Amino acid sequence: MNLKKIASELKNFEGVLRKKEIKNVVNNFKFEDNDYYFDIISDFGDDAAVIGIDNENAILLAADGIWGKLLESDPWWAGYCSVLVNTNDIAAMGGKSIAMTNIIGIRDCNIGRKVLKGVKDGMDKFGVPMVGGHTHPDANNNVLDVSITGIVKKDNILRSDNAQIGDKIVFAYDLDGKIYKNFDLNWDTTTMKSKKLVRDQLRALEIVGEEKLANACKDISNPGALGTLGMLLEVSKKGAHVDINKIPRNESVPLIKWLKLYPGCGFVFTAPEDKIDRLKEVLELVNITAEVCGEVTASKQLIITDGKDKEVLFDFDKEYICGC
Amino acid sequence: MNLKKIASELKNFEGVLRKKEIKNVVNNFKFEDNDYYFDIISDFGDDAAVIGIDNENAILLAADGIWGKLLESDPWWAGYCSVLVNTNDIAAMGGKSIAMTNIIGIRDCNIGRKVLKGVKDGMDKFGVPMVGGHTHPDANNNVLDVSITGIVKKDNILRSDNAQIGDKIVFAYDLDGKIYKNFDLNWDTTTMKSKKLVRDQLRALEIVGEEKLANACKDISNPGALGTLGMLLEVSKKGAHVDINKIPRNESVPLIKWLKLYPGCGFVFTAPEDKIDRLKEVLELVNITAEVCGEVTASKQLIITDGKDKEVLFDFDKEYICGC
Repeated sequence: MNLKKIASELKNFEGVLRKKEIKNVVNNFKFEDNDYYFDIISDFGDDAAVIGIDNENAILLAADGIWGKLLESDPWWAGYCSVLVNTNDIAAMGGKSIAMTNIIGIRDCNIGRKVLKGVKDGMDKFGVPMVGGHTHPDANNNVLDVSITGIVKKDNILRSDNAQIGDKIVFAYDLDGKIYKNFDLNWDTTTMKSKKLVRDQLRALEIVGEEKLANACKDISNPGALGTLGMLLEVSKKGAHVDINKIPRNESVPLIKWLKLYPGCGFVFTAPEDKIDRLKEVLELVNITAEVCGEVTASKQLIITDGKDKEVLFDFDKEYICGC
Repeated sequence: MNLKKIASELKNFEGVLRKKEIKNVVNNFKFEDNDYYFDIISDFGDDAAVIGIDNENAILLAADGIWGKLLESDPWWAGYCSVLVNTNDIAAMGGKSIAMTNIIGIRDCNIGRKVLKGVKDGMDKFGVPMVGGHTHPDANNNVLDVSITGIVKKDNILRSDNAQIGDKIVFAYDLDGKIYKNFDLNWDTTTMKSKKLVRDQLRALEIVGEEKLANACKDISNPGALGTLGMLLEVSKKGAHVDINKIPRNESVPLIKWLKLYPGCGFVFTAPEDKIDRLKEVLELVNITAEVCGEVTASKQLIITDGKDKEVLFDFDKEYICGC
């Protein structure tokens, strides 16, 4: 295993690099003093924004644009994933999804029908309705943007910017799946499962929040396992060391590829040592395999090891992933 | 005044015709039996979808895609309007806006900067924050999709599908404005006003809901005054007759053009006769001029008159606007 090569490949793959643009957009929305009616508990930089609506509850907001390339090459999957990624964003905050809206622009009706069928199948699987939106009737390209609103008790929020020095790093995946036929980096674990199990997996994240089993959490998405952990550490202003051989993996997939996958159900947590047993138990009850793979440090470097060599994957004193 | 020509022009202008595609999208999301966790009180066909979250409160969800043509010809205005149209959607339901998310794709950075400045100025004017979203870093065209979440007491919801036979039809506009320089059908009433007044105008709609001053309400948008009323009647399964000369108008704008305008602050209500005085009072306190212009009927036809002739504008037994 050439750890230097692995680090370089993970650092420079598209799933990670595509996050850099976020900084430029987000910086436009920073206010020095604001006079909004509701309390913004957290905005950019987490899986979902958090807005307090009363003493007890907060609303969660997230949005995802589906990549045009995905829409055209597998419109059903694109529609289905628009639901999957959004419900995972709400779950990763410890919240419950309420409903989604979509903005759709369709140039080709045949593609459009398949996209909408995918969305509908996603609604049915994940149990979250699409309740409104906007249609571009004269789009000159195919667009699918989906927003989701969820709700969470303020006490139970799983933030990604709250990793604490000494926390154990836990990677958690549903390992029972397959690479999706048309997308080499999509680890599908939901299309073949009952909606009960899929919804119970999302519900497990709410339990993690309710029982306060983790200090930080993020759902593993396009940047892959270590890119996602990197984003969590970046906003937590911490570092970590991680043994990449300890990350739960379906052995049919080579390690370097596994680390780049977008899983149907995959999360990274940081948690105090005394919470680990219960955290693993809650996840394993719903077929999610969770393992301690490292520890949070004060260093602002994410250092990976294969048990022998060490390599700096990200150094947040010198670089950024999304810059939030 | 040639009423037949006015009817034909209003029926066939782009603002109305562009709504027809909605039917095809919405029909894909209809479920016979669903098992969602939260109660969907209303989904497609209103200014915002309504989801009950507890005994007392409902969440409102709306989304708007900004037209590519608008983005390119006046990016600042496009960004600003993305906030305006969404906050008006929540206000028209009697609700209070919580926050927005956006999905942005920018091909040209110069345009992008102006769009984001417009969004920021809109946030500041209307008092609603942009808290998250998704950035397409490699868009091959310019896209701005904005979603908004609001909240309302279930008892105070202003629906558009609840017009009652015998209700008076009230059109209400802020008449103090100007045609926006680059868009001949945009009646701008907010850029030159204090944020206090603009926010008080939105708040006035909450008061209409709290005091139950209207049975139905919709904000006047792309289909113009009568197209918007038509959509309200379509979902209410009612008809109406309207005297077009009674619709409040800034006399610097010719009638036919006025009827096509997208106003910065314009609403149509249907209300019982005994609520009219208080409804007008609440609106006039915040510089919105409201007038009774007609009455809701059982006929399913929207009939317009100039006080002399009559003409059927829409006949919902034979045609539809958005088909929800």
